[in-house]
Amino acid sequence: MNIGVLGTGSVGRAIATRLVELGHVVCMGTRDPENPNARDWLATVGTARGARVGTFADAASHGAILVNATSGEGSIAALRLAGDRNLHGKVLLDVSNPLDSSTGFPPSLSVVNTDSLAEQIQRTFPSLKVVKTLNTVTADVMVNPQQLPEDTTMFVAGEDAEAKATAADILRSFGWRSILDLGGITSARGMEMYVQLWISLRLAQGTNGFNVRVVRA
Amino acid sequence: MNIGVLGTGSVGRAIATRLVELGHVVCMGTRDPENPNARDWLATVGTARGARVGTFADAASHGAILVNATSGEGSIAALRLAGDRNLHGKVLLDVSNPLDSSTGFPPSLSVVNTDSLAEQIQRTFPSLKVVKTLNTVTADVMVNPQQLPEDTTMFVAGEDAEAKATAADILRSFGWRSILDLGGITSARGMEMYVQLWISLRLAQGTNGFNVRVVRA
Repeated sequence: MNIGVLGTGSVGRAIATRLVELGHVVCMGTRDPENPNARDWLATVGTARGARVGTFADAASHGAILVNATSGEGSIAALRLAGDRNLHGKVLLDVSNPLDSSTGFPPSLSVVNTDSLAEQIQRTFPSLKVVKTLNTVTADVMVNPQQLPEDTTMFVAGEDAEAKATAADILRSFGWRSILDLGGITSARGMEMYVQLWISLRLAQGTNGFNVRVVRA
Repeated sequence: MNIGVLGTGSVGRAIATRLVELGHVVCMGTRDPENPNARDWLATVGTARGARVGTFADAASHGAILVNATSGEGSIAALRLAGDRNLHGKVLLDVSNPLDSSTGFPPSLSVVNTDSLAEQIQRTFPSLKVVKTLNTVTADVMVNPQQLPEDTTMFVAGEDAEAKATAADILRSFGWRSILDLGGITSARGMEMYVQLWISLRLAQGTNGFNVRVVRA
């Protein structure tokens, strides 16, 4: 499948690499296609399977499915650059977190509590089918959850059931087995606010390599 | 041990009952000792083991350890009524959540992101040794975590290591086996913000009877 991955950070590169390994044709979108992260990524995965680097608009135009792996602060701007026409009607996996990098430690969220980044994206681009997912784990766990010694839980939230089914297919191809549908896009609030707990868990455990498993009675 | 439980809601009653069962001498504190919840509780546990109902000040004066199980909105006011002299130097298990009941659904938090209720309590009553804990599960799971089919994780956060050790002793007596120290009181932010995810999880699963287990690589 043709997939556009917006963002060249560790999350974007990890997801784009995994998608190429799984046989997808990936275009990584960046503000500046000369971005060294993007160039390094392309050198690593090679072009034999159609992988390429382009603008946000190139990646959005290319993808039947899109992944928002830009920084939370830059997500709306990146999607504007991608262009409404290139986004129209597409499934967008929003894996970003609205971390405010301007404040010190502990970091805070730039949108929180009564709104979420995923809701902002959905409101700003109503023709997108936004699915919030994967933002609750580090990049390496996103694409290889089976590195953890037990099955853990991945969440999806969004308004469109078919889009969530598409997201779940991709999650399963990454190795996720326990996928919990949290309902509409407002559930992205909790998924994004969890990031503050995640940061505390990372510090307490001294590793990014963890996730939670939901256990019910 | 003498323990003062502030609050007569389902959380206060569940914790107070469990503490009586475990042999502690409990005074339940309320704004109005004629509060029917408090009276019902006392009728259920009986007075043979010294259990009683009193004002917030009575409960705080009675307890060598205190539990804040008031509603988040009322916590600071309840502790003011308890009185500085009665709080001085004591361990306070803060199990409350700052849910803002004035808004609709989904609920929001009245303090969030760059502060937390636990931090507000610690700042307002600096002689208290505040330990945030138990707020991440429903009352029934707080006091009986082994009802879940797998071991799950309980968090503690606070500035005082000895107070956290005291809290952990009580948690173990309730049946908790995996207790994760998240560090200083600022980690209460993540624990309180998790409540938004908890609400989504409750709706998605149709039950309050769940918790998360932290799984690391």
